[in-house]
Amino acid sequence: MDRNAEFRRSKAQFLGKADLSRKGSVDEDVVDIVQLLNTRDQFFTTSSCSGRILLLDGGVNGFEVQKQNCCWLLVTHKPCIKDDVIAALKKANGDAILKFEPFVLHVQCRQLKDAQLLHSAAVDSGFRNSGITVGKKGKTMMAVRSTHSLEVPLSHKGKLMVTEEYIDFLLNIANQKMEENKKRIERFYNCLQHALERETVTHSHPKIKEKNNSSYTRKKKGNPEKACGKCMTEENDEEPEHDDDDPGISINIFPEEY
Amino acid sequence: MDRNAEFRRSKAQFLGKADLSRKGSVDEDVVDIVQLLNTRDQFFTTSSCSGRILLLDGGVNGFEVQKQNCCWLLVTHKPCIKDDVIAALKKANGDAILKFEPFVLHVQCRQLKDAQLLHSAAVDSGFRNSGITVGKKGKTMMAVRSTHSLEVPLSHKGKLMVTEEYIDFLLNIANQKMEENKKRIERFYNCLQHALERETVTHSHPKIKEKNNSSYTRKKKGNPEKACGKCMTEENDEEPEHDDDDPGISINIFPEEY
Repeated sequence: MDRNAEFRRSKAQFLGKADLSRKGSVDEDVVDIVQLLNTRDQFFTTSSCSGRILLLDGGVNGFEVQKQNCCWLLVTHKPCIKDDVIAALKKANGDAILKFEPFVLHVQCRQLKDAQLLHSAAVDSGFRNSGITVGKKGKTMMAVRSTHSLEVPLSHKGKLMVTEEYIDFLLNIANQKMEENKKRIERFYNCLQHALERETVTHSHPKIKEKNNSSYTRKKKGNPEKACGKCMTEENDEEPEHDDDDPGISINIFPEEY
Repeated sequence: MDRNAEFRRSKAQFLGKADLSRKGSVDEDVVDIVQLLNTRDQFFTTSSCSGRILLLDGGVNGFEVQKQNCCWLLVTHKPCIKDDVIAALKKANGDAILKFEPFVLHVQCRQLKDAQLLHSAAVDSGFRNSGITVGKKGKTMMAVRSTHSLEVPLSHKGKLMVTEEYIDFLLNIANQKMEENKKRIERFYNCLQHALERETVTHSHPKIKEKNNSSYTRKKKGNPEKACGKCMTEENDEEPEHDDDDPGISINIFPEEY
């Protein structure tokens, strides 16, 4: 079987299986992205989460939490209020941790160039920890990941270590991150759609490539908040990141791309 | 110029430049890894941080911190005590955040297969958010990233929102993460060294590949805590991760690798 046929077979097999997640379905905020990718021959999604606020009751040792074994006291993909967290915390008897986990998406890609297109759209939309994995036999995956998280220990051996006022303050921040995460998902959807349209036009009508580019430019001007390219610079400025642009990391600026 | 010559030229140019980081030098705990990679023809490192505890004084809005513009109240690559954080917090007048940021490393690779070797060693050592980036002109980067972080808002508009007891509790967790991070760095160094040795032997003496593999097996048995393969399973179990193995994410288990 050639690679394309093998990819088609794997995709059909994968998408035909039941969703094995706890929730059993794709999160509402990412349904459009998942559908957009799965209708394309060169992609299929293998896992996703739109982003969530999570309260875990872990072992009595901050970093030895095993998410699959520990107790999930609360999980929500929507903004969260203090009373829900306070009520959930009453059930904690280990070390409870509040986390905000941003959007994550795993996509299997037919070829490296497909993963590159996806990676570029993800990074341009603010998902700067995205990356490609290529297995020994050529299986190519793209993971969309953000730097935009929160992880706060709240109790120790069942004893609450912070005030209710602090929990309120913290949820305000977590909810803001949730909101920002949602904007990035929308931006990613738009970026991806534009990139896929450009790719289709370039492949099917190479001669009208130029025309298509200028039409895209007009669209960007007319609706800047939905444009892809424009958002990227703003995004990169506002994001605290442990990465290349951080002057605290030992780095040289690479003078050119090749 | 062919690709190999171009890579050699870029490497020489990059490594010949001054280190532009705040610190101006490579962190002690990652010097061995940086040297190991830079002595190999197929790699050069472009940035690194061994991992650190950081106290930032950001804008009055948790997620709008701009790391380059905000004030760094404290930064340490070693375990941290409460008194240092309390003293540093006195200088905060915005929203101070305590972060633990794990090891991060960016490596430019000559070919995709070099990035794959590096990626595999990183994931096997516990750095599960590692990923490859391939630019439009073929520039191939590998980023080593961990899921192992902490991000805790401590004050709002200069007012401390938590108790000293909580800060002590929090630093205990941050210091444990620092310790675990250091173990993973050592594991990564060992994994990488083994992978590079195997690669060299396979390339230069394909006929003794089998012999080399068995000698590696013996080495593993003799010193299991330094072995690469063994650590990987333990690691994957203990790590809380927003990823494929998390039953909360919409996912099917992919039946085979190809």
